[in-house]
Amino acid sequence: MKNNSEITACVLILGNEILSGKTQDTNLKYLGLELAKLGIKLSESRVLPDEKEIIISTLNECREKYTYVFTTGGIGPTHDDITAECVAESFNINLEISNDAVEKIMSNPKKNYKLNEARLKMATLPSGAKLIDNPLSYAPGFMIENVYVLAGIPIVAKAMFETFKNELKKNSPIESESIDIYMREGDIANPLSLIAKKYTSVDIGSYPFSNDGKYGASIVVRGRDKALIKNVINEITNTFNKTIS
Amino acid sequence: MKNNSEITACVLILGNEILSGKTQDTNLKYLGLELAKLGIKLSESRVLPDEKEIIISTLNECREKYTYVFTTGGIGPTHDDITAECVAESFNINLEISNDAVEKIMSNPKKNYKLNEARLKMATLPSGAKLIDNPLSYAPGFMIENVYVLAGIPIVAKAMFETFKNELKKNSPIESESIDIYMREGDIANPLSLIAKKYTSVDIGSYPFSNDGKYGASIVVRGRDKALIKNVINEITNTFNKTIS
Repeated sequence: MKNNSEITACVLILGNEILSGKTQDTNLKYLGLELAKLGIKLSESRVLPDEKEIIISTLNECREKYTYVFTTGGIGPTHDDITAECVAESFNINLEISNDAVEKIMSNPKKNYKLNEARLKMATLPSGAKLIDNPLSYAPGFMIENVYVLAGIPIVAKAMFETFKNELKKNSPIESESIDIYMREGDIANPLSLIAKKYTSVDIGSYPFSNDGKYGASIVVRGRDKALIKNVINEITNTFNKTIS
Repeated sequence: MKNNSEITACVLILGNEILSGKTQDTNLKYLGLELAKLGIKLSESRVLPDEKEIIISTLNECREKYTYVFTTGGIGPTHDDITAECVAESFNINLEISNDAVEKIMSNPKKNYKLNEARLKMATLPSGAKLIDNPLSYAPGFMIENVYVLAGIPIVAKAMFETFKNELKKNSPIESESIDIYMREGDIANPLSLIAKKYTSVDIGSYPFSNDGKYGASIVVRGRDKALIKNVINEITNTFNKTIS
């Protein structure tokens, strides 16, 4: 699945609550599936603590390395929400109050919604950042160059991603098909590696499982050529049907 | 929660199936909770594709940076299982067949379990690696210096971690307590930041939620001093009781 014109992405999950094990992240799975549909290769993901130094150095590294960087988390109004200042520092630009962001935040129809210091903080963004609409809870995300800053709450991250996903650079979708082989992985490995060597333009993965005491492996074939994927799946099926019978 | 004698860890989740969104990782949450109990700070986690170059460079970086590196995934018998060769290359040592590993693999009581090329591959480990027992499916993990190599299947990763967790360097456990405040985060933020400034030896996190249309935030206080955590939780409770009433 090597491709010279590969469009790549990195997802940075920001938040102590994920590293502490308190909260189960689900944003990576969502973004992984969506990016594959757009033909964008998710090359790496990192989970980082709410600490400026590591967030800034990681942003600097990853925004150079990958076509896109998506961050989730840390854009709320509390003291531990430091994503905007980290992004500003990474790009070496100033933070400023975005009037458009203030307007969006204050469009929240809830009663007694006052523009206090905390809400102004949510509107304080890297100078020149473009807003990302938040159709669910109003406080926007933002993008600057190739960095897209999303909320951490999964339904909000998803709603934000939906607003701009069609504007991202695309490639042909990364398709996949899988087949479950009810044999032990140690008996599957050798014939499977021959097939993997023959078809180098697809990725073949083998993921062992045990279901009600029956052992097997889910063989996943991924690539951009749907017909080829189908061929490879057929060859795998035929190979192991022969072996089993 | 800064600590000069901080014991730190990094979890490397190896596998295309996680980045593709096909599989939801749950090993990070488990390891995060367990490491906190041992007083080890999980400083970072990365999810990497099954590609040698990025796995080796990440291993080199992280094993220098952190007290411990735990990897999950990529230790099976199939062609996409490349963790052992990456670890060997990272430490610049040879791979060799471990007779102890062969013995453990072949102790599997299943019928027709033959020592073929694929199973020998699972026993081919960096020279000098110490085995990590696998009480569930026999094929062992291994450790070398500060790098611990675990299976990807969550129940197996867990069973492996259990076998050595008491041998890790420990610190006083990282405790946490939380309280749900049914106010909007934008109204919580300012008073909460004053409390966070006052108690710098604990981490205070605020995680917004919406429950049946009621908005609130879960305030989590983490640190090593249980009595102090309780004090801070009390102060937060009192602060917001006053604000609400």
